[in-house]
Amino acid sequence: MRMPNNPPRPASVSTPTDREIRIERVFDAPRERVWRALTDRTLLAQWWGRGNRLVIEHLELERGGHWRFIEHTSSGPQGFGGRFREVSPPERLVQTFEWDGMPGHVTVNAISLHDLGDGRTALVTVSSFHTTVERDGMLHSGMEAGVNQSYAALDKVLGS
Amino acid sequence: MRMPNNPPRPASVSTPTDREIRIERVFDAPRERVWRALTDRTLLAQWWGRGNRLVIEHLELERGGHWRFIEHTSSGPQGFGGRFREVSPPERLVQTFEWDGMPGHVTVNAISLHDLGDGRTALVTVSSFHTTVERDGMLHSGMEAGVNQSYAALDKVLGS
Repeated sequence: MRMPNNPPRPASVSTPTDREIRIERVFDAPRERVWRALTDRTLLAQWWGRGNRLVIEHLELERGGHWRFIEHTSSGPQGFGGRFREVSPPERLVQTFEWDGMPGHVTVNAISLHDLGDGRTALVTVSSFHTTVERDGMLHSGMEAGVNQSYAALDKVLGS
Repeated sequence: MRMPNNPPRPASVSTPTDREIRIERVFDAPRERVWRALTDRTLLAQWWGRGNRLVIEHLELERGGHWRFIEHTSSGPQGFGGRFREVSPPERLVQTFEWDGMPGHVTVNAISLHDLGDGRTALVTVSSFHTTVERDGMLHSGMEAGVNQSYAALDKVLGS
């Protein structure tokens, strides 16, 4: 029996190495549409913040470009940012990720979109950390619940 | 016999793990003076660029603060930057390091200053990379020669 608060379609979270987290989730939308929801300011603002208001200060979608988002949570504004390493539409996006609460701790997120051939798309994110301690800190931060909330919001954006 | 182009006092470079580079160098100056040369805009500009003009765009010397330097080399301007993770004068400085030429590849530099008790200071930098490939790329980039050039310039700043 599924608990009421469980997400209807949870992301699959695994740890391929001692410094990585891999997250996979299938979306009922073609790859180009998922890519757009990941890279368009207006669409991003509708799901990334898990229902919280999101202000996109920078989104320079090119190699070397910067991104910076402010999520307005019930406990105050939270800043996130980084820089794009690779932007290859509609397949692959590699970017660094840093939360203002832990400055100088930088994760690399390699995001790939896989066309499943039936109108669905698998979104795979591999996050690489400098140390296992930082990786485990992220795992125990409530990340998985947050990802599932974001992806449930992304389902709605893709369905609309 | 020492070759004329060899530095008079080369830094000791080692690889403690497969994703780290450790650089140690002794300076003939007390710790507080070395700390100042590492953190004061005017002094930094005199040695960090190895004789090239250095423009310091940002130097927010506090946890979470940003730094950004432009080195004007013979092959054009080169941008470097990052963010401070820890600022503990006069002992320890931890900061991220990213070169514009390889955006999204972020190193963590942990710099510590050791008072040798005789008016000299050992400066130790441990650089951590996300991957061994990135670490080896840095080792083969001419980094060691660059460090020795910078430290020879730092000798002069400390002696003046």
